[in-house]
Amino acid sequence: MFLSKLFIPITKNLPSDAKIKSHQLMLRAGMIKQSSAGIYSWLPIGLKVMKKIEQIVREEQNKIGAQELLMPTIQSADIWKESGRYNDYGEEMLRIKDRQGREMLYGPTNEELITDIFRSSVKSYKSLPQMLYHIQWKFRDEIRPRFGVMRCREFFMKDAYSFDLDDNSAKISYNKMFFSYLKTFKRLGLEAIPMAADTGPIGGDLSHEFIILAETGESKIYTDKSIFEIDLNNYSYDNLSLEKMIKDYSSVYAVTDEKFKKAEFDKKVNKQNQLITKGIEVGHIFYFGDKYSKPLNCFVDSQDGKKNAVKMGSYGIGVSRLVGAIIEAKYEKEIMKWPKAVSPFDVVIIPSFNKNNKENLTKSIKIYEELKKQNIDVLLDDVEENMSQKFKKHDLIGIPFQIIVGSKSTESKIEFKEVNSESSFVDLKDIKSKLKS
Amino acid sequence: MFLSKLFIPITKNLPSDAKIKSHQLMLRAGMIKQSSAGIYSWLPIGLKVMKKIEQIVREEQNKIGAQELLMPTIQSADIWKESGRYNDYGEEMLRIKDRQGREMLYGPTNEELITDIFRSSVKSYKSLPQMLYHIQWKFRDEIRPRFGVMRCREFFMKDAYSFDLDDNSAKISYNKMFFSYLKTFKRLGLEAIPMAADTGPIGGDLSHEFIILAETGESKIYTDKSIFEIDLNNYSYDNLSLEKMIKDYSSVYAVTDEKFKKAEFDKKVNKQNQLITKGIEVGHIFYFGDKYSKPLNCFVDSQDGKKNAVKMGSYGIGVSRLVGAIIEAKYEKEIMKWPKAVSPFDVVIIPSFNKNNKENLTKSIKIYEELKKQNIDVLLDDVEENMSQKFKKHDLIGIPFQIIVGSKSTESKIEFKEVNSESSFVDLKDIKSKLKS
Repeated sequence: MFLSKLFIPITKNLPSDAKIKSHQLMLRAGMIKQSSAGIYSWLPIGLKVMKKIEQIVREEQNKIGAQELLMPTIQSADIWKESGRYNDYGEEMLRIKDRQGREMLYGPTNEELITDIFRSSVKSYKSLPQMLYHIQWKFRDEIRPRFGVMRCREFFMKDAYSFDLDDNSAKISYNKMFFSYLKTFKRLGLEAIPMAADTGPIGGDLSHEFIILAETGESKIYTDKSIFEIDLNNYSYDNLSLEKMIKDYSSVYAVTDEKFKKAEFDKKVNKQNQLITKGIEVGHIFYFGDKYSKPLNCFVDSQDGKKNAVKMGSYGIGVSRLVGAIIEAKYEKEIMKWPKAVSPFDVVIIPSFNKNNKENLTKSIKIYEELKKQNIDVLLDDVEENMSQKFKKHDLIGIPFQIIVGSKSTESKIEFKEVNSESSFVDLKDIKSKLKS
Repeated sequence: MFLSKLFIPITKNLPSDAKIKSHQLMLRAGMIKQSSAGIYSWLPIGLKVMKKIEQIVREEQNKIGAQELLMPTIQSADIWKESGRYNDYGEEMLRIKDRQGREMLYGPTNEELITDIFRSSVKSYKSLPQMLYHIQWKFRDEIRPRFGVMRCREFFMKDAYSFDLDDNSAKISYNKMFFSYLKTFKRLGLEAIPMAADTGPIGGDLSHEFIILAETGESKIYTDKSIFEIDLNNYSYDNLSLEKMIKDYSSVYAVTDEKFKKAEFDKKVNKQNQLITKGIEVGHIFYFGDKYSKPLNCFVDSQDGKKNAVKMGSYGIGVSRLVGAIIEAKYEKEIMKWPKAVSPFDVVIIPSFNKNNKENLTKSIKIYEELKKQNIDVLLDDVEENMSQKFKKHDLIGIPFQIIVGSKSTESKIEFKEVNSESSFVDLKDIKSKLKS
C-alpha cells in the first residue's frame, strides 16, 4: 500500500474528552472516528489491527475445540424474561420496540440466547462437553461513555460458553479456557494477570478477570509480585497440568478491588512483594453452574437416565477494547510500537525525496515490489514531506520496522530500524528474513 | 473435524413457514436457527459458508483498490435528518431511543455515515478517486420477514462507496465495480446477470441489479437470452475494456419488473430470444452523483480552486443472502452441492462401520490424518449409522467431494466421488491433488 492512497486521516486537533493515550493516538493516527457518543467507525488501519486481534483470539479458541457460531445483535426480550434478567439488567441494556411493538434489545451479552440454542439441539450427555463461541458486536448503553474504545457503547467481543454434565467436568472446561486466555494474550504481546474477581450481573461463584497493568486502567488491583514469575511454558492442556497451573496461580494473592481485604493482603503477602496498581480488564471468565440452564430448562439425559441441568460457564474477551489496551501498554514517550502479530503493516519504507529529486522514491518502489513478492505487507511512505515530519507521523502509526531510504543507504546496504532500537545497514535479503521470522 | 463433535443440529421437523428450498435446507442441515422473526443465529457450518463468501467479496473489493473500514451498526438520527432521509425511510428503519432520549437507529444502509467520514477527512481533489467499503450487519424491519435468510431483518452486507471529482471519473468507478461484481459472483460459482434497475430509496439515475436465475426468486426479470453469451474473460480493468464491457451489456435487453415495457421488449428482442423468468437479487449498484454530498456539505477543492460536491456511488452485495441464493441455485432433486470455493468442508470421509466392526473407521481416521497434513479441511463422519442414513445426511450438508470407505475400498484404492457424478477407485495421492487443485 502506498501511503498517499491509504485512507488514514491523521489529525492534529484532539477533542477535549480524549484524555488517555490510546484514545488520543487512535484519533491522531486516523484509526477511528467517533460517529456519536461512545460509538466509533473503525478506519482502515484501526480495523486491520482489530481484525488481527480477532483472528488470534479465534485461533486460540479453535485450538481448545470451541466451535464458532454467530448470534444476532438484536434479541427478543422474551428469553431475558425467561431467565429473569430483563428487569435486573438496568439501563445499560438498549431496549427497542420494533414496528410491530415487540420488545427487543441489542444484546449486551449472550447467556440466554446460547442456552436457547443449546437446549433445542442437545439432549444427551453424549454430546458433552461442548464449547461454543462467537465474535460479535454488542451494545451497553453506558451512562458516560469515555476513553475512546475502552469504554464505548458499541463494542466487539468474543464470548464463549461451556456446557458440561457436572461440576468436575465444568471445572476442566474453565481451566482450559483460563490457560487459553493466557496464551491468547501472550500472542498479542501482552502480559495478562488472572485475578480472582466478582461475578457481577453474570452471576455464579467462580470468576477471574485478566488484567494488564497500565497507569490509565480503571481497575484497581492488589497482587503479590511473585505472580510475574509463573512461567506459562511449564504447563500444557493436559488435565493434570491445568490443575497444577490453577493451583500455582491460586496460591499467589491477586485480586481486584471488590475482592480486596487489607488484613488478608498484609497477612499473605510480605511488604516488599505487595503491588497496588491499576490495570485494564481485557478478559473475564465465569463459572455459574445452572444459573441459566435451570430457569431456561436446558436439561440433558445423563448416563443413568436422569435429567440434569447443564453446567455452564461464560468467557469474554474484549476484542475492540484490546486495540486500546495494547496502545496503553506499548505507547511510550510519544512513540508507538505495535507487537509484530497485530501491527497494521509488517514494515514501512520511508524514503527521503522532494519534487526535484525522486531517486530515493524510485529505489523505494523497487524494494517495495521485492517485499510484496514475499507476501510481506509493506507500507511505502510516498508523501512529499521532510523526514522529521515523516518520522513523527510514523511514531504515531507504530509499525515496528522501518526501512529508511536516504543519503546513508547505498546500492547494496539499506538502513533498517526496529522502532526504539538503533538502525543498521543490511542487505535486503536479511530484512526479508527478519520480517518473515 | 469429526462429525460427532461438530455442532450441527440436523432437524427433520420443519416449521410451516419454511417454504423455499434454501430456508428448508438451512434449517434441516443445522446451518441456522431462528431466534426471533426474521432474525437468525448462524450455526457452525452456516457461518463457515458465509465467512468464505465474505472473504471472496473482500478480496475482489481489495483488488480494485477499495479500502475496508467498519462503520457501527447504531447511528445517530441527526445525520439522517441532515440528508433528509430520516422521515422518508419509513418503518423499515429500526428507530431507537437511548437512555438519554437521543434518537438513534440501526443502520439499514450507510450513505450518510460514509459521507460524514469522508467530508471530515478529505478536502482536495488530490485524494480522489477513492473507494471505501465495509462488511457489516444491517437491519431492515420488514413487515413480513420470510424465506429464511433471503428476506430477513438482520442481515450481513458488503456496501461500498465511491468518491470522484466529476461524472466521467465517477462512471469509471461505477464500471470497475460492475466488473468486480461479475467476477465476484463467478468465483462464488454463480452466473449473475446485470439488469438495468430502479434506484428506490437510495436515489440517483443509474443503477443495476445483479440477479441470479431461480424459480423461487422474488424479482421478475425480462431479458434477451443472448446476455448469457457475453464472456467475462474478454474484458479487463483497463478503462477502454471496461467501457466496451458496459456497452456490450447495455446493448442487450435485460431489465427488472419496474423498468419493463412490453412494447420495447417486443421491439428489441425477437420472440425466441425472449426470456421472462424469476431471479434473486444478490447485488445492487447505484450512481447518484451529489444526492448526499450536497445536503451533507461534502465538498473538495478542485484543481482550479473551486469547491465541488463529491460525486458518489454506492454498491451493495448481500453476503448473508448469498448463502441462501447459492442454495436456491445449487440444491436440486434433494441433493445439495456447494461450489468448491464456499463449501463448509473440502471433503467428507464416510466410513461404513458398526459397533462390532470398526475397521473402516480406523482406516478412515488414517486417511483423515493424511489429508489434514495437506491442510485439507476434512469432515469425518464417525457417527454410527447405516450408510443410507449417512448419504441422506450428506445430501443435505452438500460437501462436493466424498471419500467412501466401505467393502469396495481396498488397501491402495479408495472410493472417491464428486457429488452428482459416478464414483471411482483411486490412490489417496490423486485425491489429494484433486482437492488441492
